[in-house]
Amino acid sequence: MPRGTSPVPGPPTDTAADDISSSAGPTVAPAGWHLDDAPGPLDELQLAHLDAWWRAANYLSVGQIYLMDNPLLTRPLEPDDVKPRLLGHWGTTPGLNLIYAHANRCIVERSLDAIYIMGPGHGGPGPNACAWLEGTYSEMYPSIRRDAQGMGRLFRQFSFPGGVPSHVAPDTPGSIHEGGELGYSLLHAFGAALDHPDLTVFCVVGDGEAETGPLAGSWHAAKFLNPATDGAVLPILHLNGYKIANPTLLARLPEGQLEELMRGYGYDPLTVTIEVSTNPAVAHQAMAATLDRALDRIAAIKEGGRPQGEVPRWPMIILRSPKGWTGPPEVDGQKVEGSFRAHQVPIPEARADAGHRRALEAWLRSYRPEELFDADGRPVTDLLALPPTGDSRMSANPVANGGRLMIDLELPDYRDHAVEVTGPGTRSHEATRVLGGWLREVIRANPSNFLLFGPDEVASNRLGDVFDVTGRRWLAPVEPDDQYLDPDGRVIEILSEHACQGMLEGYLLSGRHGLFTCYEAFIHIVDAMFNQHAKWLEAASAIPWRRPVASLNYLLTSHVWRQDHNGSTHQDPGFLDVVMNKKPGVVRVYLPPDANCLLSVADHCLRGRQHVNVIVAGKQPALDYLDIEDAAAHCARGIGVWEWAGTEERGRTPDVVLAAAGEIPTLEALAAADLIRRHLPDLAVRFVNVVDLMRLLPEAEHPHGLPDAEFDALFTEDRPVIFAFHGYPLLVHRLTYRRTNHHDIHVRGYKENGTTTTPFDMVMLNDLDRFHLVMDVIDRTPGLGQKAAGVRQAMVDARLRAREHTRRYGEDDPEVAGWTWPG
Amino acid sequence: MPRGTSPVPGPPTDTAADDISSSAGPTVAPAGWHLDDAPGPLDELQLAHLDAWWRAANYLSVGQIYLMDNPLLTRPLEPDDVKPRLLGHWGTTPGLNLIYAHANRCIVERSLDAIYIMGPGHGGPGPNACAWLEGTYSEMYPSIRRDAQGMGRLFRQFSFPGGVPSHVAPDTPGSIHEGGELGYSLLHAFGAALDHPDLTVFCVVGDGEAETGPLAGSWHAAKFLNPATDGAVLPILHLNGYKIANPTLLARLPEGQLEELMRGYGYDPLTVTIEVSTNPAVAHQAMAATLDRALDRIAAIKEGGRPQGEVPRWPMIILRSPKGWTGPPEVDGQKVEGSFRAHQVPIPEARADAGHRRALEAWLRSYRPEELFDADGRPVTDLLALPPTGDSRMSANPVANGGRLMIDLELPDYRDHAVEVTGPGTRSHEATRVLGGWLREVIRANPSNFLLFGPDEVASNRLGDVFDVTGRRWLAPVEPDDQYLDPDGRVIEILSEHACQGMLEGYLLSGRHGLFTCYEAFIHIVDAMFNQHAKWLEAASAIPWRRPVASLNYLLTSHVWRQDHNGSTHQDPGFLDVVMNKKPGVVRVYLPPDANCLLSVADHCLRGRQHVNVIVAGKQPALDYLDIEDAAAHCARGIGVWEWAGTEERGRTPDVVLAAAGEIPTLEALAAADLIRRHLPDLAVRFVNVVDLMRLLPEAEHPHGLPDAEFDALFTEDRPVIFAFHGYPLLVHRLTYRRTNHHDIHVRGYKENGTTTTPFDMVMLNDLDRFHLVMDVIDRTPGLGQKAAGVRQAMVDARLRAREHTRRYGEDDPEVAGWTWPG
Repeated sequence: MPRGTSPVPGPPTDTAADDISSSAGPTVAPAGWHLDDAPGPLDELQLAHLDAWWRAANYLSVGQIYLMDNPLLTRPLEPDDVKPRLLGHWGTTPGLNLIYAHANRCIVERSLDAIYIMGPGHGGPGPNACAWLEGTYSEMYPSIRRDAQGMGRLFRQFSFPGGVPSHVAPDTPGSIHEGGELGYSLLHAFGAALDHPDLTVFCVVGDGEAETGPLAGSWHAAKFLNPATDGAVLPILHLNGYKIANPTLLARLPEGQLEELMRGYGYDPLTVTIEVSTNPAVAHQAMAATLDRALDRIAAIKEGGRPQGEVPRWPMIILRSPKGWTGPPEVDGQKVEGSFRAHQVPIPEARADAGHRRALEAWLRSYRPEELFDADGRPVTDLLALPPTGDSRMSANPVANGGRLMIDLELPDYRDHAVEVTGPGTRSHEATRVLGGWLREVIRANPSNFLLFGPDEVASNRLGDVFDVTGRRWLAPVEPDDQYLDPDGRVIEILSEHACQGMLEGYLLSGRHGLFTCYEAFIHIVDAMFNQHAKWLEAASAIPWRRPVASLNYLLTSHVWRQDHNGSTHQDPGFLDVVMNKKPGVVRVYLPPDANCLLSVADHCLRGRQHVNVIVAGKQPALDYLDIEDAAAHCARGIGVWEWAGTEERGRTPDVVLAAAGEIPTLEALAAADLIRRHLPDLAVRFVNVVDLMRLLPEAEHPHGLPDAEFDALFTEDRPVIFAFHGYPLLVHRLTYRRTNHHDIHVRGYKENGTTTTPFDMVMLNDLDRFHLVMDVIDRTPGLGQKAAGVRQAMVDARLRAREHTRRYGEDDPEVAGWTWPG
Repeated sequence: MPRGTSPVPGPPTDTAADDISSSAGPTVAPAGWHLDDAPGPLDELQLAHLDAWWRAANYLSVGQIYLMDNPLLTRPLEPDDVKPRLLGHWGTTPGLNLIYAHANRCIVERSLDAIYIMGPGHGGPGPNACAWLEGTYSEMYPSIRRDAQGMGRLFRQFSFPGGVPSHVAPDTPGSIHEGGELGYSLLHAFGAALDHPDLTVFCVVGDGEAETGPLAGSWHAAKFLNPATDGAVLPILHLNGYKIANPTLLARLPEGQLEELMRGYGYDPLTVTIEVSTNPAVAHQAMAATLDRALDRIAAIKEGGRPQGEVPRWPMIILRSPKGWTGPPEVDGQKVEGSFRAHQVPIPEARADAGHRRALEAWLRSYRPEELFDADGRPVTDLLALPPTGDSRMSANPVANGGRLMIDLELPDYRDHAVEVTGPGTRSHEATRVLGGWLREVIRANPSNFLLFGPDEVASNRLGDVFDVTGRRWLAPVEPDDQYLDPDGRVIEILSEHACQGMLEGYLLSGRHGLFTCYEAFIHIVDAMFNQHAKWLEAASAIPWRRPVASLNYLLTSHVWRQDHNGSTHQDPGFLDVVMNKKPGVVRVYLPPDANCLLSVADHCLRGRQHVNVIVAGKQPALDYLDIEDAAAHCARGIGVWEWAGTEERGRTPDVVLAAAGEIPTLEALAAADLIRRHLPDLAVRFVNVVDLMRLLPEAEHPHGLPDAEFDALFTEDRPVIFAFHGYPLLVHRLTYRRTNHHDIHVRGYKENGTTTTPFDMVMLNDLDRFHLVMDVIDRTPGLGQKAAGVRQAMVDARLRAREHTRRYGEDDPEVAGWTWPG
């Protein structure tokens, strides 16, 4: 319990803004149950409290799906009490509420620091209900008080215009996991547990979600948890048998096969089976006993401390319970409870059809709301006996509002890692290797607050200097030939982009910092996850109680222009296009042209909040252009003229603008500028370099957007712009289509022309090479064509020679490959 | 053996173009082995043949990675014999060759019809070598003969400019699985096995790949294989212990845990363990015995026929073998064979460093090439004793060149399913439900040649009519409440977009047809897989021996504009942007505005070859506009003026163009046209509807691109265009940025403004609603502003009223929602 409160079992104290002490109502009693019928760890009172909480949460969940008004059923339901559009997912909700209730008992009894992640996200009514019962909802949304009026508002806003979505979302107190796209619950859970040694994450995985690839792969994430320094994840695989319309694969495995699967994944599975006919008291006892067993096992693993060459066998729970349990058994003669028909809204015509409406009312009354809420709609005192208080409430735990916990990174001065640049374009460095030196210091300075994720590419992407101070997280036995494996490693490598992304998301949303390094082409694997995370940030930024979290930082290297030998499968710069579709307030793209610029950009990104930052940089030796002060200034501006590379006269508009964004485009554009200097000495060329791609957007469309006047000042109003671009050329057109000079911006970039070849042949295949850029300048600059015909032909010839050399010798002509700035 | 040849064990016959009968060389014998040391199913001769093949394939693999010249080592290696850039992955290759060799023995002995899928795709040298040994390489590429000169060319072209990539690719004979991005081998294998009852797919899964989410989820795909009507997949999990730099998770599981995992996935695992010290003869015997056991088990399952309510427990093989087995044990004092250093090029300086070069030569000679190839470089006769002949060679099997097998779909007339349209915009249909009727007939007419895939959304996407004639594929026991489950079902539903995409890809590439239906937002999950498939099609189209395969068809529904209640997580039309980055020759996007147009477009797409077709259509009730003949004509043109909706006079340029692409944009734009008619009767409006998005591109950039003159004729050269668009607005700018009138094209589309709301409120949030479109027309049409100020204010008021209604009643004003064309 590192963060203040220290709840002990005992009489509940209310922490909500509204005053509950007056709400003592009828005593809650489990109707018609006897402890003798349901032996187990719970005594009569605990059983009563658990069951009452569960019934209350279920009542409040059904109310959210259905009711516009009359929340306490103070009168018979009328058509107007029922929402005109019935939305939401009942099927998974009673199970989610059951687990929540039981987790609460354990939190209090064991003084756990715990959060709750709900994979079956469309069960949004459940966590809303629980947060309301715990008082957190009213604290976050004061207009939704913990009384009848608040209950009415809680109900009405659910899946209602202007209200909250039907799945778990940033709006949901206690959540770091959006219930939109399925597959990432476990990854978020493990990410939150990393470096939170006292945390327990209850993570419910739906059996639909369990079929997705990302989820199927993410069970292995437990292999990275170090019991001495990380928290614990208790996965609860919630089998209710059906997806939307189909049975689920895992729910129908033959006897024992699912347990085998879970043991194979490395877990110790514990099973709870509840059927429609199961007495809820028996179910509660089974659930409580199983949770106790699982948490005892976790405590034992944690007591063992730092493992000696073995991965602990963590427990997990398989909970089988009927879909839509406690809902209507039948509707219109068709089975609902325990069938796929319970998935969404089990009684569809409750507004229009009197019979349906009576069935709904009976269903609601089956939870005996009169025992749960007083006449003012406040939860009765006994209901408040269950949950913990203050920050120990799962709905209020600061881990799930990570900005509350976030500590700024200690960032060593990146200038100390600068490469010396005496003149532009003469010496080379591997940009990512230079960055690796700084990242080593970042890791050293932030030993429990920063993680580096990668799909086994940290060394290949030349960030290997980090291994001077840390290792790759690995708990299994180490063999003699292994390198840098370490149970305390600050580098997490698994050959799954999904796992890297998902764990990093969980780590960030729970208040820490990190970086994900990946091959550029394969980052598309997580397009959908990026989208969802960006949407989370968009929504979270508008929620006052959500504190800003650290930005999600991508370092994309092994980029499209140096995958020449791998062919077209490894060439795809299109992630930038995906990123650009998200809210401008959230996304940033940086294309540092050299090592010093990469340092400056990386420093900026690691300081960021609430953004997704994409950095694309090279790992191969590449020329340095800017010393560290110039690099810092250039990156701060994000775009600028490189006067040393141009031939324009001050105060006069140049004849042509040569622009470049990205490592290789900058190289080729500079080599083109050099050729122009030599062959067309009278041509006035301006050289513009773009680091921050968002600068190209209009001011009104992005916070980084250049005002039109500044754009015009850089790119001129009426001169041709030859733009060498890292990605797909249309992206530049998309960003600049509103600019004055747009019709005269000519972009060269990747056009899906790739094959197995050499670096220079690769740029030639896409007409991004220096020779072609000079040809473009000649073709596009008015009046130059005739005069420069000889130069143009020389460029054509140079290209042919370069290609011939490549095809003959298997490598680029050293004269081309070894070009440096003549300066 | 449904396709002609029927190989039996016996003397090999050569089918390659070159004449091999003259190439009888020295007898191949296993050096220093005695059968007594290695008892097993293989006799001395079989052992010799297997080992010789394996050594030859390894020799040819190393040659590809290293040699520019001197392929037969007729003289000591010189620096110039070695390639200047050494690229390729040795580590996985000897294992791939071992499995290939052993599969060949089984194919011949058991008359198998088999293909080979290699997950560890960077082992490209292996399959190239095997195809060359089988003669297929020379048949496909006649300049690469099966002799010394051809061997030299085979070596040189590998990872060489203008040559073949280092991973398996469309260039590789016998492949349907690109080795670029990892994770999809098993899915491709299962897709190929579906509806190929006599096929055996040997599928090697690398232990790196096995860590990916998609692969981890795809083991479950076996649950869909019907032994009576589908082929078999034999997964071979190839553990060589390391990824690039890290050990793999699965290779280091504690004793027995991996077997548990595989049994949990439903398999019967068989293990072969080979260590560096293992005598190859022992390894061959173990491999042969295990393959026999696995294939016996498969044969027994197949003999059992249609299963009675159970999923067969298919065999799989766990093959542990040292990474880079038979390669150099040490280089520069560091262990290589059996370590991560064997991953790529184990002897890095073989050109520049004499010691490295001698080590390379010793390595090559260790395979005793003089026993394997005659003086002319032809494989000795004994080498040809192993593989099957003709189409039975895995490198020549037509299943892996699916176009050779493909039979056109029998397509029932879609006109029979047309909805009656007496006037535009008066009656409504659910477009996908109408399509479902036609798809039912497609399935009926093509009972073993067409499959419908979906992540449990076929019913939810309203294609449920297909269940009149088929079911959902399901082999496990069926319970009373299940619907439409059937072991012979033509619908495959698993809650994994990856699995749907991957199996469909395998099904198409092996010569069949299919459709993948998915929620629009979540299709981003397979962005990366789409990219890779599109790249496959790009490359395959340029390979003469690859026959065209059926297009990959997406039906995206539950689209962005009807996810209002689900909030922004379910809203993302960005897949279109991803698609547009691929080669124009490959990609197509269709946005049919109504049910009849959807029928026409779907019919067109199911006839397609070598394309990726994306259809976005609605599933909610929506107005019909065109009768079936008009729809067919409109969709054939892809874009056109709807004269009935406009108010322009023939022969005169209109004042403004109102354009729409997509179901909801068309509705809103028509409603806007109606408002303009009533409120601004003098305004000459042209109404353009776009079905085929590629028509917006210039003629030079896409085969469907409109010539500039036609574009100008439609959109005018100088009148404002208000464009209501289904997706992100910038996509239209990106497509039209070169058009004459582009500066005056104003696009409304999705801008990441989404929340939980109603359909009309959702379009209002993004300014795509009818009222805002009228405001846009007023604002953009020169001279209209002042005159129409009152109308503009009326629109502002109408929007406010609409929003108020929504927020108050929870549903849209029926007057807005119920709008029809006044006709």
